[in-house]
Amino acid sequence: MTPAARFPIGVFDSGIGGLTVMRALMQRMPQESILYFGDTARVPYGVKSVETIAHYATQITEFLLARQVKLLIVACNTMAAVAVQAIRDLSPVPVLDVIEAGARVAARTTRSKQVGVIGTLATVASGAYQRAIHAHEASVTVRSQACPLFVPLVEEGWLEHPVTRLTAQEYLAPLLAERIDTLVLGCTHYPLLKPLLGEVVGPAVTLVDSAETVAGETEALLAARDLAHHGEARHEFFVTDVPQRFQRIGELFLGRALEPVHVVQW
Amino acid sequence: MTPAARFPIGVFDSGIGGLTVMRALMQRMPQESILYFGDTARVPYGVKSVETIAHYATQITEFLLARQVKLLIVACNTMAAVAVQAIRDLSPVPVLDVIEAGARVAARTTRSKQVGVIGTLATVASGAYQRAIHAHEASVTVRSQACPLFVPLVEEGWLEHPVTRLTAQEYLAPLLAERIDTLVLGCTHYPLLKPLLGEVVGPAVTLVDSAETVAGETEALLAARDLAHHGEARHEFFVTDVPQRFQRIGELFLGRALEPVHVVQW
Repeated sequence: MTPAARFPIGVFDSGIGGLTVMRALMQRMPQESILYFGDTARVPYGVKSVETIAHYATQITEFLLARQVKLLIVACNTMAAVAVQAIRDLSPVPVLDVIEAGARVAARTTRSKQVGVIGTLATVASGAYQRAIHAHEASVTVRSQACPLFVPLVEEGWLEHPVTRLTAQEYLAPLLAERIDTLVLGCTHYPLLKPLLGEVVGPAVTLVDSAETVAGETEALLAARDLAHHGEARHEFFVTDVPQRFQRIGELFLGRALEPVHVVQW
Repeated sequence: MTPAARFPIGVFDSGIGGLTVMRALMQRMPQESILYFGDTARVPYGVKSVETIAHYATQITEFLLARQVKLLIVACNTMAAVAVQAIRDLSPVPVLDVIEAGARVAARTTRSKQVGVIGTLATVASGAYQRAIHAHEASVTVRSQACPLFVPLVEEGWLEHPVTRLTAQEYLAPLLAERIDTLVLGCTHYPLLKPLLGEVVGPAVTLVDSAETVAGETEALLAARDLAHHGEARHEFFVTDVPQRFQRIGELFLGRALEPVHVVQW
Protein backbone atom coordinates (compact mmCIF):
# COMPACT_ATOMS: atom_id res chain seq x y z
CA MET A 1 0.00 0.00 0.00
CA THR A 2 1.55 3.31 -1.11
CA PRO A 3 1.25 6.37 1.19
CA ALA A 4 -1.32 7.93 -1.18
CA ALA A 5 -3.61 4.93 -0.65
CA ARG A 6 -5.02 6.53 2.50
CA PHE A 7 -6.11 9.65 0.60
CA PRO A 8 -9.80 9.83 -0.24
CA ILE A 9 -11.49 9.38 -3.60
CA GLY A 10 -13.07 12.61 -4.87
CA VAL A 11 -16.51 12.19 -6.45
CA PHE A 12 -18.35 15.12 -7.95
CA ASP A 13 -21.62 15.95 -9.60
CA SER A 14 -23.75 18.96 -10.44
CA GLY A 15 -26.08 17.99 -7.61
CA ILE A 16 -27.08 14.90 -5.70
CA GLY A 17 -27.43 12.45 -8.61
CA GLY A 18 -23.79 11.42 -8.22
CA LEU A 19 -24.73 9.89 -4.88
CA THR A 20 -25.82 6.81 -6.85
CA VAL A 21 -22.16 6.51 -7.89
CA MET A 22 -20.98 7.06 -4.31
CA ARG A 23 -23.42 4.39 -3.15
CA ALA A 24 -22.03 1.88 -5.68
CA LEU A 25 -18.48 2.74 -4.56
CA MET A 26 -19.36 2.30 -0.86
CA GLN A 27 -21.02 -1.06 -1.50
CA ARG A 28 -18.06 -2.37 -3.45
CA MET A 29 -15.25 -0.72 -1.42
CA PRO A 30 -16.50 0.06 2.11
CA GLN A 31 -12.93 0.70 3.26
CA GLU A 32 -12.33 3.64 0.89
CA SER A 33 -12.69 7.23 2.13
CA ILE A 34 -14.75 9.42 -0.20
CA LEU A 35 -15.25 13.18 -0.51
CA TYR A 36 -18.43 14.00 -2.37
CA PHE A 37 -18.96 17.40 -3.97
CA GLY A 38 -22.44 18.39 -5.21
CA ASP A 39 -22.94 21.80 -6.81
CA THR A 40 -26.47 22.06 -5.47
CA ALA A 41 -26.66 25.86 -5.82
CA ARG A 42 -26.14 25.67 -9.58
CA VAL A 43 -27.82 22.38 -10.47
CA PRO A 44 -29.02 21.40 -13.06
CA TYR A 45 -26.12 21.64 -15.49
CA GLY A 46 -27.99 19.68 -18.18
CA VAL A 47 -29.59 22.74 -19.75
CA LYS A 48 -26.62 25.14 -19.47
CA SER A 49 -24.11 26.14 -22.15
CA VAL A 50 -20.84 24.26 -22.68
CA GLU A 51 -18.76 27.26 -21.54
CA THR A 52 -20.63 27.59 -18.26
CA ILE A 53 -20.41 23.85 -17.52
CA ALA A 54 -16.65 23.79 -18.22
CA HIS A 55 -16.10 26.78 -15.94
CA TYR A 56 -17.99 25.13 -13.07
CA ALA A 57 -16.21 21.78 -13.60
CA THR A 58 -12.80 23.45 -13.36
CA GLN A 59 -13.76 25.18 -10.12
CA ILE A 60 -14.87 21.91 -8.49
CA THR A 61 -11.80 20.00 -9.70
CA GLU A 62 -9.50 22.59 -8.10
CA PHE A 63 -11.50 22.38 -4.87
CA LEU A 64 -11.11 18.60 -4.58
CA LEU A 65 -7.46 18.54 -5.70
CA ALA A 66 -6.68 21.02 -2.90
CA ARG A 67 -8.02 18.37 -0.49
CA GLN A 68 -5.51 15.78 -1.71
CA VAL A 69 -7.63 13.12 -3.36
CA LYS A 70 -5.98 10.08 -4.95
CA LEU A 71 -8.51 9.74 -7.75
CA LEU A 72 -11.25 11.90 -9.25
CA ILE A 73 -14.55 10.49 -10.43
CA VAL A 74 -16.72 12.67 -12.65
CA ALA A 75 -20.09 11.34 -11.52
CA CYS A 76 -22.04 13.73 -13.71
CA ASN A 77 -22.80 12.77 -17.27
CA THR A 78 -23.17 16.38 -18.35
CA MET A 79 -19.69 17.34 -17.08
CA ALA A 80 -18.20 14.12 -18.44
CA ALA A 81 -19.82 14.88 -21.81
CA VAL A 82 -18.54 18.40 -22.28
CA ALA A 83 -15.72 19.07 -19.80
CA VAL A 84 -13.78 15.87 -19.11
CA GLN A 85 -10.73 16.99 -21.11
CA ALA A 86 -10.47 20.22 -19.13
CA ILE A 87 -10.65 18.18 -15.92
CA ARG A 88 -7.95 15.72 -17.07
CA ASP A 89 -5.70 18.61 -18.13
CA LEU A 90 -5.89 20.03 -14.61
CA SER A 91 -5.51 16.82 -12.64
CA PRO A 92 -2.23 15.14 -11.57
CA VAL A 93 -4.27 12.17 -10.27
CA PRO A 94 -6.25 9.69 -12.43
CA VAL A 95 -9.71 10.76 -13.63
CA LEU A 96 -12.55 8.29 -14.25
CA ASP A 97 -15.91 9.28 -15.61
CA VAL A 98 -19.34 7.74 -15.98
CA ILE A 99 -19.47 8.09 -19.75
CA GLU A 100 -16.26 6.21 -20.51
CA ALA A 101 -17.26 3.47 -18.06
CA GLY A 102 -20.79 3.11 -19.47
CA ALA A 103 -19.60 3.22 -23.08
CA ARG A 104 -17.07 0.43 -22.59
CA VAL A 105 -19.65 -1.91 -21.05
CA ALA A 106 -22.28 -1.06 -23.67
CA ALA A 107 -19.89 -1.79 -26.55
CA ARG A 108 -19.04 -5.14 -24.95
CA THR A 109 -22.67 -6.04 -24.18
CA THR A 110 -24.57 -5.44 -27.40
CA ARG A 111 -25.14 -8.32 -29.82
CA SER A 112 -27.51 -6.55 -32.22
CA LYS A 113 -25.05 -3.62 -32.48
CA GLN A 114 -27.96 -1.28 -31.74
CA VAL A 115 -27.36 0.63 -28.50
CA GLY A 116 -29.72 3.19 -26.98
CA VAL A 117 -28.51 6.04 -24.76
CA ILE A 118 -30.77 8.18 -22.59
CA GLY A 119 -29.65 11.32 -20.76
CA THR A 120 -30.12 15.05 -20.28
CA LEU A 121 -30.37 17.47 -23.19
CA ALA A 122 -26.73 18.54 -22.84
CA THR A 123 -25.41 14.97 -22.64
CA VAL A 124 -27.36 13.87 -25.70
CA ALA A 125 -26.54 17.01 -27.70
CA SER A 126 -22.82 16.54 -26.99
CA GLY A 127 -22.70 13.18 -28.78
CA ALA A 128 -20.19 12.06 -26.12
CA TYR A 129 -21.61 8.56 -25.62
CA GLN A 130 -21.66 7.94 -29.35
CA ARG A 131 -17.98 8.92 -29.66
CA ALA A 132 -16.98 6.89 -26.60
CA ILE A 133 -18.87 3.77 -27.76
CA HIS A 134 -17.42 4.07 -31.28
CA ALA A 135 -13.91 4.30 -29.85
CA HIS A 136 -14.49 0.78 -28.49
CA GLU A 137 -16.62 -0.69 -31.27
CA ALA A 138 -17.05 1.24 -34.50
CA SER A 139 -19.77 -1.06 -35.87
CA VAL A 140 -22.34 -0.10 -33.21
CA THR A 141 -25.23 2.19 -34.12
CA VAL A 142 -26.04 4.52 -31.22
CA ARG A 143 -29.57 5.94 -30.83
CA SER A 144 -29.89 8.76 -28.32
CA GLN A 145 -32.91 10.23 -26.59
CA ALA A 146 -33.00 13.17 -24.21
CA CYS A 147 -35.36 12.56 -21.26
CA PRO A 148 -35.56 15.93 -19.46
CA LEU A 149 -38.49 14.86 -17.28
CA PHE A 150 -36.77 11.90 -15.63
CA VAL A 151 -34.69 13.99 -13.20
CA PRO A 152 -37.65 15.92 -11.76
CA LEU A 153 -39.72 12.71 -11.65
CA VAL A 154 -37.00 10.98 -9.60
CA GLU A 155 -36.67 14.00 -7.31
CA GLU A 156 -40.45 13.94 -6.80
CA GLY A 157 -39.99 10.34 -5.65
CA TRP A 158 -42.35 9.03 -8.36
CA LEU A 159 -40.15 6.02 -9.06
CA GLU A 160 -43.04 3.65 -9.84
CA HIS A 161 -45.76 6.17 -10.63
CA PRO A 162 -48.11 5.86 -13.64
CA VAL A 163 -46.94 9.31 -14.79
CA THR A 164 -43.35 8.08 -14.86
CA ARG A 165 -44.34 4.92 -16.72
CA LEU A 166 -46.25 6.90 -19.36
CA THR A 167 -43.32 9.31 -19.73
CA ALA A 168 -40.85 6.44 -20.10
CA GLN A 169 -43.04 4.75 -22.71
CA GLU A 170 -43.14 7.96 -24.72
CA TYR A 171 -39.39 8.65 -24.50
CA LEU A 172 -38.31 5.06 -25.18
CA ALA A 173 -40.69 4.20 -28.04
CA PRO A 174 -38.34 5.52 -30.79
CA LEU A 175 -35.39 3.56 -29.34
CA LEU A 176 -37.39 0.33 -29.04
CA ALA A 177 -38.56 0.78 -32.64
CA GLU A 178 -34.88 0.59 -33.64
CA ARG A 179 -34.56 -2.80 -31.90
CA ILE A 180 -31.85 -1.82 -29.42
CA ASP A 181 -30.67 -4.66 -27.16
CA THR A 182 -28.67 -2.44 -24.76
CA LEU A 183 -29.77 0.79 -23.06
CA VAL A 184 -27.24 3.03 -21.32
CA LEU A 185 -28.68 4.98 -18.37
CA GLY A 186 -26.70 8.12 -19.19
CA CYS A 187 -27.63 10.18 -16.14
CA THR A 188 -26.88 9.45 -12.50
CA HIS A 189 -30.52 9.93 -11.52
CA TYR A 190 -31.69 7.10 -13.73
CA PRO A 191 -30.50 4.08 -11.69
CA LEU A 192 -33.39 4.87 -9.35
CA LEU A 193 -35.75 4.22 -12.27
CA LYS A 194 -34.12 0.89 -13.14
CA PRO A 195 -37.03 -1.36 -12.07
CA LEU A 196 -39.58 0.69 -14.02
CA LEU A 197 -37.33 1.12 -17.08
CA GLY A 198 -36.64 -2.62 -17.05
CA GLU A 199 -40.38 -3.27 -17.29
CA VAL A 200 -40.87 -0.73 -20.07
CA VAL A 201 -38.03 -2.03 -22.27
CA GLY A 202 -38.64 -5.72 -21.49
CA PRO A 203 -36.21 -8.57 -20.79
CA ALA A 204 -34.56 -8.50 -24.24
CA VAL A 205 -32.84 -5.18 -23.48
CA THR A 206 -29.88 -4.98 -21.06
CA LEU A 207 -29.68 -1.85 -18.92
CA VAL A 208 -26.19 -0.41 -18.40
CA ASP A 209 -25.99 1.46 -15.10
CA SER A 210 -22.91 3.67 -15.19
CA ALA A 211 -22.81 4.00 -11.39
CA GLU A 212 -22.10 0.25 -11.22
CA THR A 213 -19.67 0.27 -14.11
CA VAL A 214 -17.59 3.20 -12.83
CA ALA A 215 -17.38 1.54 -9.39
CA GLY A 216 -15.99 -1.58 -11.07
CA GLU A 217 -13.40 0.47 -12.96
CA THR A 218 -12.40 2.28 -9.78
CA GLU A 219 -11.73 -0.97 -7.96
CA ALA A 220 -9.60 -2.27 -10.83
CA LEU A 221 -7.62 0.97 -11.15
CA LEU A 222 -6.88 1.22 -7.41
CA ALA A 223 -5.70 -2.39 -7.33
CA ALA A 224 -3.51 -1.95 -10.42
CA ARG A 225 -1.80 1.13 -8.98
CA ASP A 226 -1.46 -0.22 -5.46
CA LEU A 227 -3.77 2.55 -4.24
CA ALA A 228 -6.45 0.46 -2.51
CA HIS A 229 -7.03 1.34 1.15
CA HIS A 230 -7.56 -1.22 3.90
CA GLY A 231 -8.23 0.86 7.02
CA GLU A 232 -11.19 2.82 8.35
CA ALA A 233 -13.11 4.94 5.90
CA ARG A 234 -14.46 8.47 6.26
CA HIS A 235 -17.17 10.00 4.12
CA GLU A 236 -17.78 13.72 3.75
CA PHE A 237 -20.19 15.79 1.71
CA PHE A 238 -19.57 19.25 0.28
CA VAL A 239 -22.47 21.16 -1.29
CA THR A 240 -22.90 24.72 -2.52
CA ASP A 241 -26.42 25.00 -1.11
CA VAL A 242 -28.73 23.02 1.14
CA PRO A 243 -31.84 22.93 -1.01
CA GLN A 244 -35.41 21.96 -0.15
CA ARG A 245 -35.77 18.24 0.56
CA PHE A 246 -31.99 17.78 0.42
CA GLN A 247 -31.73 15.14 3.14
CA ARG A 248 -34.80 13.25 1.96
CA ILE A 249 -33.70 13.07 -1.66
CA GLY A 250 -30.08 12.45 -0.65
CA GLU A 251 -31.08 9.43 1.40
CA LEU A 252 -33.19 8.14 -1.47
CA PHE A 253 -30.04 8.18 -3.61
CA LEU A 254 -27.43 7.11 -1.08
CA GLY A 255 -29.45 4.62 0.92
CA ARG A 256 -28.30 6.16 4.23
CA ALA A 257 -28.12 9.57 5.94
CA LEU A 258 -25.78 12.21 4.48
CA GLU A 259 -23.33 13.44 7.10
CA PRO A 260 -21.26 15.40 7.72
CA VAL A 261 -22.42 18.01 5.17
CA HIS A 262 -20.29 21.14 4.63
CA VAL A 263 -21.70 24.11 2.74
CA VAL A 264 -19.24 25.82 0.38
CA GLN A 265 -20.16 29.43 -0.41
CA TRP A 266 -19.15 30.47 -3.93
CA MET B 1 -45.51 62.93 -18.66
CA THR B 2 -42.61 63.24 -16.20
CA PRO B 3 -39.02 62.86 -17.50
CA ALA B 4 -38.74 59.43 -15.82
CA ALA B 5 -41.68 58.17 -17.93
CA ARG B 6 -39.31 57.35 -20.78
CA PHE B 7 -37.23 55.04 -18.59
CA PRO B 8 -37.88 51.33 -19.03
CA ILE B 9 -39.69 48.94 -16.73
CA GLY B 10 -37.36 46.32 -15.23
CA VAL B 11 -38.78 42.80 -15.12
CA PHE B 12 -36.85 39.94 -13.59
CA ASP B 13 -37.10 36.24 -13.02
CA SER B 14 -34.90 33.30 -12.16
CA GLY B 15 -35.18 32.16 -15.76
CA ILE B 16 -37.53 32.54 -18.68
CA GLY B 17 -40.85 31.99 -16.88
CA GLY B 18 -41.16 35.73 -16.26
CA LEU B 19 -41.56 36.18 -20.00
CA THR B 20 -45.25 35.39 -19.46
CA VAL B 21 -45.36 38.57 -17.36
CA MET B 22 -43.46 40.52 -20.00
CA ARG B 23 -45.88 39.24 -22.63
CA ALA B 24 -48.87 40.43 -20.59
CA LEU B 25 -47.18 43.84 -20.12
CA MET B 26 -46.45 44.15 -23.87
CA GLN B 27 -50.01 43.28 -24.80
CA ARG B 28 -51.49 45.80 -22.39
CA MET B 29 -48.86 48.56 -22.78
CA PRO B 30 -47.12 48.19 -26.16
CA GLN B 31 -45.60 51.66 -25.80
CA GLU B 32 -43.60 50.83 -22.65
CA SER B 33 -39.90 49.97 -22.87
CA ILE B 34 -38.94 46.86 -20.89
CA LEU B 35 -35.64 45.38 -19.73
CA TYR B 36 -35.97 41.71 -18.93
CA PHE B 37 -33.45 39.93 -16.72
CA GLY B 38 -33.46 36.11 -16.53
CA ASP B 39 -30.91 34.37 -14.32
CA THR B 40 -30.70 31.40 -16.68
CA ALA B 41 -27.33 30.17 -15.38
CA ARG B 42 -28.72 29.66 -11.87
CA VAL B 43 -32.31 28.67 -12.57
CA PRO B 44 -34.29 27.07 -10.94
CA TYR B 45 -34.51 29.02 -7.69
CA GLY B 46 -37.50 27.00 -6.48
CA VAL B 47 -35.41 24.34 -4.77
CA LYS B 48 -32.67 26.58 -3.32
CA SER B 49 -32.32 27.92 0.21
CA VAL B 50 -33.78 31.26 1.29
CA GLU B 51 -30.31 32.78 1.83
CA THR B 52 -29.14 31.88 -1.67
CA ILE B 53 -32.31 33.21 -3.29
CA ALA B 54 -32.07 36.51 -1.39
CA HIS B 55 -28.44 36.93 -2.41
CA TYR B 56 -29.27 36.39 -6.09
CA ALA B 57 -32.30 38.72 -5.94
CA THR B 58 -30.17 41.52 -4.52
CA GLN B 59 -27.59 41.12 -7.26
CA ILE B 60 -30.22 41.34 -10.02
CA THR B 61 -31.97 44.32 -8.41
CA GLU B 62 -28.70 46.26 -8.34
CA PHE B 63 -28.06 45.38 -11.97
CA LEU B 64 -31.42 46.75 -13.14
CA LEU B 65 -31.34 49.84 -10.90
CA ALA B 66 -27.95 50.72 -12.46
CA ARG B 67 -29.78 50.80 -15.82
CA GLN B 68 -32.24 53.44 -14.59
CA VAL B 69 -35.58 51.68 -14.58
CA LYS B 70 -38.71 53.51 -13.45
CA LEU B 71 -40.35 50.47 -11.89
CA LEU B 72 -39.26 46.97 -10.88
CA ILE B 73 -41.45 43.92 -11.35
CA VAL B 74 -40.50 40.75 -9.51
CA ALA B 75 -41.83 38.26 -12.05
CA CYS B 76 -40.65 35.25 -10.08
CA ASN B 77 -42.87 33.80 -7.42
CA THR B 78 -39.94 32.27 -5.58
CA MET B 79 -38.13 35.61 -5.24
CA ALA B 80 -41.37 37.39 -4.41
CA ALA B 81 -42.05 34.79 -1.73
CA VAL B 82 -38.75 34.96 0.10
CA ALA B 83 -36.88 38.11 -0.96
CA VAL B 84 -39.34 40.90 -1.80
CA GLN B 85 -38.53 42.88 1.34
CA ALA B 86 -34.80 42.88 0.56
CA ILE B 87 -35.63 44.11 -2.95
CA ARG B 88 -37.92 46.88 -1.66
CA ASP B 89 -35.30 47.99 0.86
CA LEU B 90 -32.79 48.43 -1.97
CA SER B 91 -35.03 50.12 -4.50
CA PRO B 92 -35.75 53.87 -4.78
CA VAL B 93 -38.37 53.09 -7.49
CA PRO B 94 -41.68 51.27 -6.93
CA VAL B 95 -41.60 47.46 -6.74
CA LEU B 96 -44.51 45.26 -7.84
CA ASP B 97 -44.56 41.51 -7.52
CA VAL B 98 -46.60 38.61 -8.79
CA ILE B 99 -47.60 37.34 -5.35
CA GLU B 100 -49.14 40.57 -4.10
CA ALA B 101 -50.98 41.00 -7.41
CA GLY B 102 -52.31 37.42 -7.45
CA ALA B 103 -53.27 37.49 -3.77
CA ARG B 104 -55.33 40.67 -4.14
CA VAL B 105 -57.34 39.28 -7.05
CA ALA B 106 -57.82 35.89 -5.36
CA ALA B 107 -59.15 37.49 -2.16
CA ARG B 108 -61.59 39.55 -4.25
CA THR B 109 -62.69 36.62 -6.44
CA THR B 110 -63.51 33.80 -4.02
CA ARG B 111 -67.09 33.32 -2.87
CA SER B 112 -66.60 30.00 -1.02
CA LYS B 113 -63.62 31.51 0.86
CA GLN B 114 -61.62 28.41 -0.14
CA VAL B 115 -58.64 29.41 -2.30
CA GLY B 116 -56.08 27.02 -3.77
CA VAL B 117 -52.51 28.07 -4.55
CA ILE B 118 -50.08 26.05 -6.67
CA GLY B 119 -46.38 26.84 -7.05
CA THR B 120 -42.82 25.62 -6.60
CA LEU B 121 -41.62 23.97 -3.41
CA ALA B 122 -39.98 27.18 -2.18
CA THR B 123 -43.04 29.34 -2.90
CA VAL B 124 -45.40 26.96 -1.12
CA ALA B 125 -43.05 26.38 1.82
CA SER B 126 -42.71 30.14 2.33
CA GLY B 127 -46.43 30.58 3.03
CA ALA B 128 -46.19 33.93 1.21
CA TYR B 129 -49.47 33.61 -0.70
CA GLN B 130 -51.34 32.67 2.45
CA ARG B 131 -50.00 35.77 4.27
CA ALA B 132 -50.71 38.02 1.29
CA ILE B 133 -54.26 36.73 0.82
CA HIS B 134 -55.00 37.02 4.55
CA ALA B 135 -53.79 40.61 4.54
CA HIS B 136 -56.67 41.33 2.13
CA GLU B 137 -59.29 38.93 3.48
CA ALA B 138 -58.68 37.16 6.77
CA SER B 139 -61.66 34.82 6.41
CA VAL B 140 -60.22 32.94 3.44
CA THR B 141 -58.81 29.44 3.90
CA VAL B 142 -55.78 28.92 1.68
CA ARG B 143 -54.85 25.42 0.52
CA SER B 144 -51.40 25.12 -1.07
CA GLN B 145 -49.87 22.44 -3.24
CA ALA B 146 -46.32 22.30 -4.59
CA CYS B 147 -46.23 21.10 -8.21
CA PRO B 148 -42.51 20.59 -8.95
CA LEU B 149 -43.16 18.73 -12.22
CA PHE B 150 -45.10 21.51 -13.93
CA VAL B 151 -42.03 23.60 -14.81
CA PRO B 152 -40.17 20.78 -16.58
CA LEU B 153 -43.40 19.69 -18.29
CA VAL B 154 -43.92 23.21 -19.68
CA GLU B 155 -40.29 23.41 -20.77
CA GLU B 156 -40.69 20.06 -22.54
CA GLY B 157 -43.59 21.69 -24.42
CA TRP B 158 -46.07 19.07 -23.16
CA LEU B 159 -48.80 21.66 -22.63
CA GLU B 160 -51.67 19.34 -23.58
CA HIS B 161 -49.98 15.97 -23.09
CA PRO B 162 -51.64 13.02 -21.29
CA VAL B 163 -48.66 12.94 -18.87
CA THR B 164 -49.31 16.56 -17.94
CA ARG B 165 -53.03 15.90 -17.49
CA LEU B 166 -52.38 12.90 -15.23
CA THR B 167 -49.85 14.92 -13.22
CA ALA B 168 -52.29 17.81 -12.85
CA GLN B 169 -55.07 15.47 -11.73
CA GLU B 170 -52.79 14.03 -9.06
CA TYR B 171 -51.54 17.40 -7.78
CA LEU B 172 -54.95 19.10 -7.81
CA ALA B 173 -57.07 16.30 -6.30
CA PRO B 174 -56.45 17.38 -2.66
CA LEU B 175 -57.36 21.01 -3.49
CA LEU B 176 -60.53 20.04 -5.34
CA ALA B 177 -61.53 17.84 -2.40
CA GLU B 178 -61.50 21.02 -0.29
CA ARG B 179 -64.01 22.63 -2.69
CA ILE B 180 -61.85 25.59 -3.70
CA ASP B 181 -63.56 28.02 -6.11
CA THR B 182 -60.39 29.99 -6.96
CA LEU B 183 -56.98 28.67 -7.96
CA VAL B 184 -53.92 30.94 -8.03
CA LEU B 185 -51.31 29.96 -10.62
CA GLY B 186 -48.40 30.80 -8.33
CA CYS B 187 -45.58 30.28 -10.82
CA THR B 188 -44.90 32.17 -14.03
CA HIS B 189 -44.64 28.95 -16.02
CA TYR B 190 -48.18 27.93 -15.24
CA PRO B 191 -50.11 30.35 -17.48
CA LEU B 192 -49.00 28.12 -20.36
CA LEU B 193 -50.94 25.28 -18.74
CA LYS B 194 -54.10 27.37 -18.33
CA PRO B 195 -56.22 25.51 -20.92
CA LEU B 196 -55.35 22.10 -19.46
CA LEU B 197 -55.69 23.23 -15.83
CA GLY B 198 -59.04 24.81 -16.66
CA GLU B 199 -60.28 21.44 -17.91
CA VAL B 200 -58.94 19.57 -14.87
CA VAL B 201 -60.50 21.92 -12.30
CA GLY B 202 -63.74 22.48 -14.23
CA PRO B 203 -65.82 25.61 -14.82
CA ALA B 204 -66.68 26.17 -11.13
CA VAL B 205 -63.09 27.16 -10.31
CA THR B 206 -61.66 30.53 -11.41
CA LEU B 207 -57.99 30.54 -12.38
CA VAL B 208 -55.99 33.59 -11.25
CA ASP B 209 -53.08 34.24 -13.62
CA SER B 210 -50.62 36.52 -11.86
CA ALA B 211 -48.98 37.58 -15.13
CA GLU B 212 -52.29 39.21 -16.09
CA THR B 213 -52.93 40.66 -12.66
CA VAL B 214 -49.48 42.24 -12.27
CA ALA B 215 -49.80 43.78 -15.75
CA GLY B 216 -53.07 45.38 -14.64
CA GLU B 217 -51.44 46.75 -11.49
CA THR B 218 -48.53 48.13 -13.49
CA GLU B 219 -50.83 50.05 -15.80
CA ALA B 220 -52.70 51.54 -12.85
CA LEU B 221 -49.52 52.51 -11.00
CA LEU B 222 -47.90 54.17 -14.02
CA ALA B 223 -51.06 56.18 -14.68
CA ALA B 224 -51.40 57.23 -11.05
CA ARG B 225 -47.79 58.47 -10.88
CA ASP B 226 -47.79 60.09 -14.31
CA LEU B 227 -45.13 57.62 -15.42
CA ALA B 228 -46.86 56.11 -18.48
CA HIS B 229 -44.88 56.39 -21.69
CA HIS B 230 -46.39 57.29 -25.07
CA GLY B 231 -43.50 57.02 -27.53
CA GLU B 232 -41.65 54.19 -29.19
CA ALA B 233 -40.78 51.18 -27.05
CA ARG B 234 -37.57 49.17 -26.85
CA HIS B 235 -37.29 45.68 -25.43
CA GLU B 236 -34.03 44.10 -24.27
CA PHE B 237 -33.17 40.78 -22.69
CA PHE B 238 -30.35 40.09 -20.23
CA VAL B 239 -29.54 36.50 -19.30
CA THR B 240 -26.70 34.88 -17.34
CA ASP B 241 -26.46 31.94 -19.76
CA VAL B 242 -27.87 30.91 -23.12
CA PRO B 243 -29.14 27.46 -22.28
CA GLN B 244 -30.23 24.62 -24.56
CA ARG B 245 -33.49 25.39 -26.37
CA PHE B 246 -33.45 28.98 -25.06
CA GLN B 247 -34.93 30.64 -28.14
CA ARG B 248 -37.52 27.90 -28.68
CA ILE B 249 -38.77 27.97 -25.09
CA GLY B 250 -38.48 31.75 -24.94
CA GLU B 251 -40.73 32.15 -27.95
CA LEU B 252 -43.22 29.71 -26.46
CA PHE B 253 -43.47 32.03 -23.44
CA LEU B 254 -43.21 35.42 -25.11
CA GLY B 255 -45.12 34.70 -28.30
CA ARG B 256 -42.39 36.34 -30.43
CA ALA B 257 -38.61 36.13 -30.95
CA LEU B 258 -36.35 37.25 -28.10
CA GLU B 259 -33.95 39.94 -29.27
CA PRO B 260 -31.62 41.55 -28.56
CA VAL B 261 -30.22 39.14 -25.96
CA HIS B 262 -27.20 40.18 -23.87
CA VAL B 263 -25.30 37.61 -21.81
CA VAL B 264 -24.17 38.81 -18.38
CA GLN B 265 -21.21 36.82 -16.98
CA TRP B 266 -21.33 36.53 -13.20
